[in-house]
This record gives sequence, C-alpha cells and structure tokens, in this order.
Amino acid sequence: MTLIVQKYGGTSVATPEKIKAVAKRIAASKKNGDKLIVVLSAMAGETNRLIELSKEAGALPSPKHQDLLVSTGEQVSVSLMAIALEDLGIKAEPLLAHQVSIVTDENHGRARILDIDTKKLLNIIDDGKVPVVAGFQGVTKDGAITTMGRGGSDITAVAIAAALKADRCDIFTDVDGVFTADPRICEKSKKLNRISYEEMLELADSGAKVLHTRAVEIAAKYRVPVHVRSSFKDSDGTWVVPEEESMEDALVSGITCNINEAKVAIRRVPDKIGVTAKIFEPISKAGINVDMILQNVSADGYTDLTFTVPKEDLKKAIALAEVSARQVEAGRVEAAGDIAKISVVGVGMRSHAGIAHTMFDALAKEGIAIQMIGTSEIKVSIVIDMKYAELAVRILHDAFHLEKSS
Amino acid sequence: MTLIVQKYGGTSVATPEKIKAVAKRIAASKKNGDKLIVVLSAMAGETNRLIELSKEAGALPSPKHQDLLVSTGEQVSVSLMAIALEDLGIKAEPLLAHQVSIVTDENHGRARILDIDTKKLLNIIDDGKVPVVAGFQGVTKDGAITTMGRGGSDITAVAIAAALKADRCDIFTDVDGVFTADPRICEKSKKLNRISYEEMLELADSGAKVLHTRAVEIAAKYRVPVHVRSSFKDSDGTWVVPEEESMEDALVSGITCNINEAKVAIRRVPDKIGVTAKIFEPISKAGINVDMILQNVSADGYTDLTFTVPKEDLKKAIALAEVSARQVEAGRVEAAGDIAKISVVGVGMRSHAGIAHTMFDALAKEGIAIQMIGTSEIKVSIVIDMKYAELAVRILHDAFHLEKSS
Repeated sequence: MTLIVQKYGGTSVATPEKIKAVAKRIAASKKNGDKLIVVLSAMAGETNRLIELSKEAGALPSPKHQDLLVSTGEQVSVSLMAIALEDLGIKAEPLLAHQVSIVTDENHGRARILDIDTKKLLNIIDDGKVPVVAGFQGVTKDGAITTMGRGGSDITAVAIAAALKADRCDIFTDVDGVFTADPRICEKSKKLNRISYEEMLELADSGAKVLHTRAVEIAAKYRVPVHVRSSFKDSDGTWVVPEEESMEDALVSGITCNINEAKVAIRRVPDKIGVTAKIFEPISKAGINVDMILQNVSADGYTDLTFTVPKEDLKKAIALAEVSARQVEAGRVEAAGDIAKISVVGVGMRSHAGIAHTMFDALAKEGIAIQMIGTSEIKVSIVIDMKYAELAVRILHDAFHLEKSS
Repeated sequence: MTLIVQKYGGTSVATPEKIKAVAKRIAASKKNGDKLIVVLSAMAGETNRLIELSKEAGALPSPKHQDLLVSTGEQVSVSLMAIALEDLGIKAEPLLAHQVSIVTDENHGRARILDIDTKKLLNIIDDGKVPVVAGFQGVTKDGAITTMGRGGSDITAVAIAAALKADRCDIFTDVDGVFTADPRICEKSKKLNRISYEEMLELADSGAKVLHTRAVEIAAKYRVPVHVRSSFKDSDGTWVVPEEESMEDALVSGITCNINEAKVAIRRVPDKIGVTAKIFEPISKAGINVDMILQNVSADGYTDLTFTVPKEDLKKAIALAEVSARQVEAGRVEAAGDIAKISVVGVGMRSHAGIAHTMFDALAKEGIAIQMIGTSEIKVSIVIDMKYAELAVRILHDAFHLEKSS
C-alpha cells in the first residue's frame, strides 16, 4: 500500500464548492487503496484578510498574537474539508498543529519545525480515517501557536512525508507543474517532467513560487519524492527528485524572473577587514532579507558594495545603509527599485563553462544592459532594468532551446 | 485589590474600531488597579458566517468538526484584542480553551465545563499581564475542541469567575442591563438595579437573551456577583446577586416574551402509565428541546397532551409525534407556529397568590385568549396568539406597575 501526503493550496480550497471537488479527489485516492494524509492551506484570501484586521487593531501587532490570529485560516479549511469528506462517506480527522503535534521553535511568523509526532497520525490511518492536517502552523514547547511564513503549508506537507517516510508528497496547486519559465511571460515555456531538488531549490529561491524553498530543502535532506501537480487535472505534473545522470543532458532546466527586489549600492567603501560586517549588522538586525551581495576587487583601497533587498524593505534598508556608510566613512548610497533579477538554473551547468557566455551574449545582442551578476554552482543570476524583464526571459528561453525540454 | 472577570459580547468586538474602544476600557480598569481576566465572544456575525460555510461544505456537518470550525471566531477576537491592548502598552496574553485549560465533556455543540485550571491564569495575572480568554470553547480530555452553544461566552466568563473566586463578573453587552420588559416592545420598561439569580434564571429561560441560562446557574451555585452592563457607557447596569429580603417588596421583576417556540398537541392520549414517556422518547432522542409540557386531568380515560418546541424543530417534532401517537393509540396531532410565550417572573410571587389572577384578568379585559398556562415557583408563563404578543407585554407591564421598578 502506498503512503501519500497530499497538500492542497489556498486556490484549491478557496470556496466550499472547491473544497467539495478536492474531497472527491481525496475520496478517489482513498478508494484506490492509498493511505493518505491531507495537508491544507487557508482558503485563498483569508490570510490577507486576517493580517489586514490585525493592522487595524494595532499599529505594531506582535508576531506571536498575529500567529494565533492567522492560524485560524487553516483551522477553517481542515474543518470544512472533514465535513465535505464525511459527506462522501470518508471518515476524516481534522488536526491542528498542537493536536498532531508539530513542534517548532519560537520564531513567530517564520518558525522552523523541530519535531513531528507520528504516533497519532499513524493511529488515525490505521483506524481507516484520513488525517486532515492544518498546514502552516506549529506549536512551541510552551504551547504557543506559531506559523512558518507564507507558503508554509508546503513545509508542513513535506516534513510530515519525511517523518512518516511516505512514498511521496503530492503538492496540488493551481498550475500544471514546474515550467522552464513562467508561462504568462514566455508562451514557449514547457512543463518539466522531472527536476532535481537542487534545481528546484534555486528556482524557488529565484522567484518560482510553486514550492516553498524550505519545503524543497527538507525534501532533499530526507529524499522525499515530491510531485507538483494541478488540483484540477488528473495528468502528471513535475516530479522533484534526487539528481540522476540523465538529467545532465539538460544544461539549463528553467529561467525565473523576480521583480520583488530592489538594489542598494554603497559607493567608495574602505576596503578594510570588518567593514562589510559592520554595514550588514543593522540590516540583518532589522530582519531585512538580503539576497544578492556583490563586491568587486578594490581600486586604490576603496570598493563599491551592492546588494538586493525585498522592495517593501527598500526605504528602511536605505536609511540603515546611510547610517552605516557614515560610520565606516564610505561614500554615498544609491538605490533603485525598478530592477528585475533573472536567473538561469540547471545542474548541467556545473560541467559547462559556456552558460554565462551564452546568457550575456544573447542579452547583449538585444541591447539589454546587465547591472549585476551573481552565480552559484547551478545558477547564474543577473540584475537588469525591470522594463526588460519579460523580454529577457523570452530571449534566454530561446538561447537555451528550452522549448525542447520535457 | 479587586479581581474582576470582564466578558465582552459579539457586538462589542464587531470591528477593529470597537475592539480598540473595548481595549481602552480594559486599560482604564487595569490602571484603576483591578486584577482583570477578559473573556471574548466572536466578532458579531462571524459564527453565522462559519456555520453557513459548514453547511455549504456538507449536508450534515458533524458537531465535532463544526466545533473546530466555529471556535476560530473567538480565536480571532482574542488575537485582535491582545494586539489592541499591547498597542496601548498593556501586556496581554491571548488564550484558547486548551491553553487555559477549560475541560468540558464531549457533548459537541453544547458541551458542559468539567474543570478549569486556574494556575496559568493566576500566573499570567501575577506577571502583570491581562489574560484574554476565548469564550464559548472548551477542550475534551482527549484534546478535541468543543463549544458550549450560543451565548456560551457568558458561561466561560462566569465559570472562570467561580473558579478564581473573583469579586465579580462583568457582562458587557449592547444593552444597559436587565429590563422589566423588552424596551423595544414596552416603552415604559425600566432597567432593574438588582435581580436575584432565581429571577434571572427564569427570565433568561423565558427569552430574555441578555445572559445565558447556564451562566446564571453557575453564578447562583458559586455565588458569583454578576454585573450586566453596557460596553458603551460607564453607568451601572443590573446586578445579578443572591436574593435579599428587600427584594420581596417587588412582586414581579420582569416580563418576557418568546416568539421562537411552537406548540404541538396530541389529542385523546390514553391515560395509562408509561404513555407520556413513550411519546417523548423519540423527540428527546432527536435532540429537540421541549419547553412547556401540559397534561390535564383525564376524562373517560383519555387526556390531551400539549408541549412547546423551538420553531425550527416543529416539522420534525410533528412527524415524530404522529408516529408516537399511532403507537400509543392516541388521536390526531395538531400544531401551531404562530404563538408567543409570555412569562411573568418575580421572587415576590412565592408568597402572593394573586399574581396569576391579576395576569389572567388583565388579559381577559383586552380580550386576549390564553391557550396554555404553566407555572414555576417564581414564574407564570402563558401561551397566546403571536399577534397579541407585544400588546400582552405592555398590558402586563401596566398591571404589575413595573414602570415604578428600580
């Protein structure tokens, strides 16, 4: 018998009608003889509604109280799903994080899972019932309710699959799978049949929102096969699996585009030990997530330091950078919000030197200037003017012949 | 130092603005030096919204799953209140039933409290914080979430006050207190300054919705002084307290009107031992709440049996009564939904025989026919045609000179 964790996202459970449709899908799997655990997100829009309420109630809602508030979204989903399942004659047991229990650290709003108790889940399955687990939420050792951040239900699902050594984790979503590029931008984009954890990690990190980065990390660590697929179709989606030799054939798996970052540059930073640390200390303490960091070799003892931050944190980041710049006796701070980060990802590029060249060449031919470049083992990211974002994705999709992917 | 439990109902926390207004009131009490525990209902309308969702998700939502669903309403309120309080510099600790813990039986939808752990509440108060407890909800010994039925937050508040031996329990609501009659029906009605537990119990039971019947029972049992008052005013409301000698002065405290019941009559019921029990067995098993039951002395071995049920259960009650009637070889079943139950309540009537007479006389003068009569030690209830309901309240208010109450 196959043990499967099925996760349904917010758009899949957005209304009672959609919940009933998902319930039918679950009932079919159950009748197929599979052992199931279902993990749900909040109904689409609900988390935003609750966060709005919290902002109206107080200027600075504490993350702890906000967690208690927004965790109700998933509680509503699992209750309604249990009702819909029982309407179809499937016995269901809705479960909150503290009932499972899913223990996290005390980092409210972005808690990390420390432990999942599998006993209760296994007992419920042995009783012939379907456990319906509230995603996104956890509980501290002291019993406070936590949440794992946006997209956290993916983390819950994959972590439960890992803890139960499930045969696979199905991530049901509103797209057909993982694509070589965003189909709304690039009409030639193709759905990938398989992708490695490493590639998925880079894609998720670079702006492909189909799967939460930490969920991919957990899947990779515990070798959980993840199947990203549509809640509305029966066809196969994309399998996220351990890297195989055959994957090396493809130089590049996908291209992502992230327009939610802004860049900050500090000019003429003294090239002394400890200066960079001093600059990033206040930014990190403010909880601002710094993505790319670039620093060139220095000329006459000075260098330019550039980094990217989420657009909504730009103002705060500029203010902090200006204070830091004065402290370390650097030059002026420059910033730009109208940028896009384009990333090319693929395990194949490890052994091929030509990726970056192909990339820069293709963009140069179209006259697109590159503002920043950063690389990882299986990714090359560039920052360009935001107005060229979609064009750049299409150009690179052609340059790497991704229309031939599968 | 005074230990006070403050309960705020759904209309008092209906919007973030109202929550902020209530937070200011709590902050003022706190600065006044009082030790406080706050108990909240769901935002007005939220419980209905959730119940609607559950009905859309499945034809027959199980009470257990529905409890998990609707308990989110109070979770939202306590989170938002904690945020609003901390915005005013008051440290708050929002608490769910399982976090307190408030243990109930497993009777989902109308659970009864078995035990309240006071340690955590007292520790929070000793830390200088305000515990903000989700009303209406409880938790079974097995960790399942229960609810106590509509108005259940009153029960939570009074039960916590009893467990903590609080000096009083303030029930903040959208009216000024308990009135001699519904002010919307009878413009001469007066707010009562004091009323005994016994009278309040009969009033609550007869349709005055200001306080839940079981909350009054608990208050009476543990002698908790309850202060029913407006959330929007500072003035005194009505004190619900142990009976005092001075109260005997007033024959009648109040008049209630309940138009949510319907009557069912079974004609020519054989007057044999066990027949009544047989008739009510299926109705009770169906969970239908029977209020008044009347059976006259028999004539020629047969009697008529009449009882009232909630209007929404009338169809089901008729069907069950018809089956029972055939089984016990009784006559036909008659029913009417257009009735009103008017009750006159007062501890003073214990020692005065004239109440019923005054009542019947006043109604007869206006030509209002009485369909049923039932009495308790401190209450006389009559059933009349619904169209005379408001008129009857005004006539009886005059007949007992309640405009002179205080």
